[in-house]
Amino acid sequence: MQDPMPNAFRPGATALPEGEAALVARRQAALGPAYRLFYEHPLHLVRGEGVWLYDAGGRAYLDTYNNVASCGHCHPRIVAAMAEQAGLFASHTRYLHDRVLTLAERLLGTMPAEMGHVMFTCTGSEANDLALRIARAATGGTGVIVTENAYHGVTASVAEFSPSLGSGVPLGPHVRTVPPPDPRRFAGDSAQGFADAVQAAIDDLNRHGIRPAVLIVDTIFSSDGVFADPTGVLGPAVAAIRAAGGIFIADEVQPGFGRTGAGMWGFSRHGIVPDMISMGKPMGNGYPLAALALRPEVIAEFGQNARYFNTFGGNAVAAAVGNAVLDVIADEGLIENARTVGAGFADTLRDLARQYAGLGQVRAAGLFLGVDVETDGHPDGARAGRLVNGLREEGVLISATGPKGHVLKIRPPLTFSADNVAFFAERLERVLRRG
Amino acid sequence: MQDPMPNAFRPGATALPEGEAALVARRQAALGPAYRLFYEHPLHLVRGEGVWLYDAGGRAYLDTYNNVASCGHCHPRIVAAMAEQAGLFASHTRYLHDRVLTLAERLLGTMPAEMGHVMFTCTGSEANDLALRIARAATGGTGVIVTENAYHGVTASVAEFSPSLGSGVPLGPHVRTVPPPDPRRFAGDSAQGFADAVQAAIDDLNRHGIRPAVLIVDTIFSSDGVFADPTGVLGPAVAAIRAAGGIFIADEVQPGFGRTGAGMWGFSRHGIVPDMISMGKPMGNGYPLAALALRPEVIAEFGQNARYFNTFGGNAVAAAVGNAVLDVIADEGLIENARTVGAGFADTLRDLARQYAGLGQVRAAGLFLGVDVETDGHPDGARAGRLVNGLREEGVLISATGPKGHVLKIRPPLTFSADNVAFFAERLERVLRRG
Repeated sequence: MQDPMPNAFRPGATALPEGEAALVARRQAALGPAYRLFYEHPLHLVRGEGVWLYDAGGRAYLDTYNNVASCGHCHPRIVAAMAEQAGLFASHTRYLHDRVLTLAERLLGTMPAEMGHVMFTCTGSEANDLALRIARAATGGTGVIVTENAYHGVTASVAEFSPSLGSGVPLGPHVRTVPPPDPRRFAGDSAQGFADAVQAAIDDLNRHGIRPAVLIVDTIFSSDGVFADPTGVLGPAVAAIRAAGGIFIADEVQPGFGRTGAGMWGFSRHGIVPDMISMGKPMGNGYPLAALALRPEVIAEFGQNARYFNTFGGNAVAAAVGNAVLDVIADEGLIENARTVGAGFADTLRDLARQYAGLGQVRAAGLFLGVDVETDGHPDGARAGRLVNGLREEGVLISATGPKGHVLKIRPPLTFSADNVAFFAERLERVLRRG
Repeated sequence: MQDPMPNAFRPGATALPEGEAALVARRQAALGPAYRLFYEHPLHLVRGEGVWLYDAGGRAYLDTYNNVASCGHCHPRIVAAMAEQAGLFASHTRYLHDRVLTLAERLLGTMPAEMGHVMFTCTGSEANDLALRIARAATGGTGVIVTENAYHGVTASVAEFSPSLGSGVPLGPHVRTVPPPDPRRFAGDSAQGFADAVQAAIDDLNRHGIRPAVLIVDTIFSSDGVFADPTGVLGPAVAAIRAAGGIFIADEVQPGFGRTGAGMWGFSRHGIVPDMISMGKPMGNGYPLAALALRPEVIAEFGQNARYFNTFGGNAVAAAVGNAVLDVIADEGLIENARTVGAGFADTLRDLARQYAGLGQVRAAGLFLGVDVETDGHPDGARAGRLVNGLREEGVLISATGPKGHVLKIRPPLTFSADNVAFFAERLERVLRRG
């Protein structure tokens, strides 16, 4: 049996209104047993605008969870760019088209000069899967090192190094896990502690005759529980994987595109330059668009032996959408907004944590926030689940994460305002007061 | 070194006009060495409408190659459905939404009653990758049997059973290949010959201690060279893989959605019911949308141990687009059109093959056509390449396929007309007359 997913609906556990029960039944019949809904009482959403979502009855919910619609739900400028290009031409990358080149060049312009190329896919899973293929060719190795509760995607090869999918999805024999750089896990220097753990994983791979290929981390450790600080924690580990002949991949699918408020990419907070950078979710604000940026020397071997074509990846509509997202991030000052509003949001949550025993440590970078939920100082996933469901009843959407499901995961659109923070805090306090 | 791709542009081999040379240079810099362009003289396309594409200079090209825009380029009804839903809400599948259920139910309505569920992805590669994960869980095996020059996708796991990617992309140790059901390859009964080859592959897997999991075929054998006839050729092979404890996957990414003119799916021409059906390319007429349909018993084990979530797969916009594509196929009579226009197209090509020694056997089902190009009765990939490039200069787009690149691959939008066939034939004859 699989491990439970945080905040998953359990069919039969809640009595649902007739219309929703019918939708749930249709869904189980049509989509089958591998799909999961959120919440004890699933949401039937029909409309989105900015930071707000609306259910079929017209009730509004403050969306502080969906990190795909980072520019706000249904952003008119992005929808218009998509519709315009879709009405004109949806090429693929075996014809010349300038929009995909412009997008690649603009993305490279946000990255360190060492990054030379961008390859386009449709999903973050595909980007990490392609990264694995390229890394194997570049290193001659197969070993992969990830954090304990990492999530990197759902292809067969990437699921093998995504431990957060649960014990029903086995890790590959070539995969080793390390603790995330949570200062509470290491005596003293987190950077050195993390690097020591990576070195031990390298040694263990080598001891088994497996050549290390990759260290890949989500640079804010989202599914491990959101570990934003200290910054600068990755350098020694990156040096260790390179010394072992492997390469370092920054998975920016969650922290990327300005969410941390400290520039476009989460890795820059750690003062390192990756060998490859994968990106996805917010890249198309809802349109299926993802990519892999890389140093030219990393792709040399793969490029000599193989070609890459993704039918929809980098098509002209995807490129138009990607460019519009970059325009909106710049023109609306979303990175600066993530920084300032995020800082206020973290302060507000820390104030609440001082008042309510159920809330523990608050960790945040920009508008990516994690809050430990505890009982008597111990992680309490069930209590986190009650808070998440209580907030849903109060019109606020978040979720929980971490190996014990005890970390509130808060990732609103980057257009979030101080008023939205106040609304969130007022509703959270209502729920906390109930216990 | 990799094998050459049919109809690939070789940088430096052709002198290009200044503007195009600049685009090619930007592209090599931005996208890197693994990307390929079509044609000796690459096309810079900027607009599409119906069966026509237009380059930056305004020249029109008859598109008889792109099997994504099967309803015609930039179909207004499909673009409108996309724009409307994108402006309203782009949910994912962890909230209730009826459009994705409607799409799943409508797709199941086009399939044999044995098929029970549909799971949504963004690309055909992801659909086949998910099929592999499910098949491994269902069978306890890992062995995969494919045709000699099959293409099923580009994820790390699917590339391992896509021999058409060339010798630079190694097949997995658990992969065996069989000849496609080309009657010229088998003495006597093609169905039995194909089944015998599959049985030999099963035996060889077992001899190596590898339990067979999957026989997967593109039901028109596109990249093997387009083998449309005889029909009814798959039954004994499907029985063989099932008897060995494996399952049969029909890859409908290329033949599906009415292209064969004999119903929605290519497998139905062979009188069998698959265990899983993967689909993609034309499903969203350009929007990244793909899926996997399956018998409920196949997903039981996977559903117990694992969950599946694809951030963009089955989102409300994807579902709106998929429903619009089904509407257009039905309301515009595209399957019937593929049948009648395709039959005329095949007759026309056979007439030409009688007149010009360079054209050999014509194989076709609906608007999926393959034509052997030969010299003195032997396959001639170089000559096919000259025809493809000659047609491009005459304003007609096709490509070449097959292990020797000698098969003209013709797959126009399903809105193709008899006039379009006449235009194609006139231009092809111009090129053939030149030698």
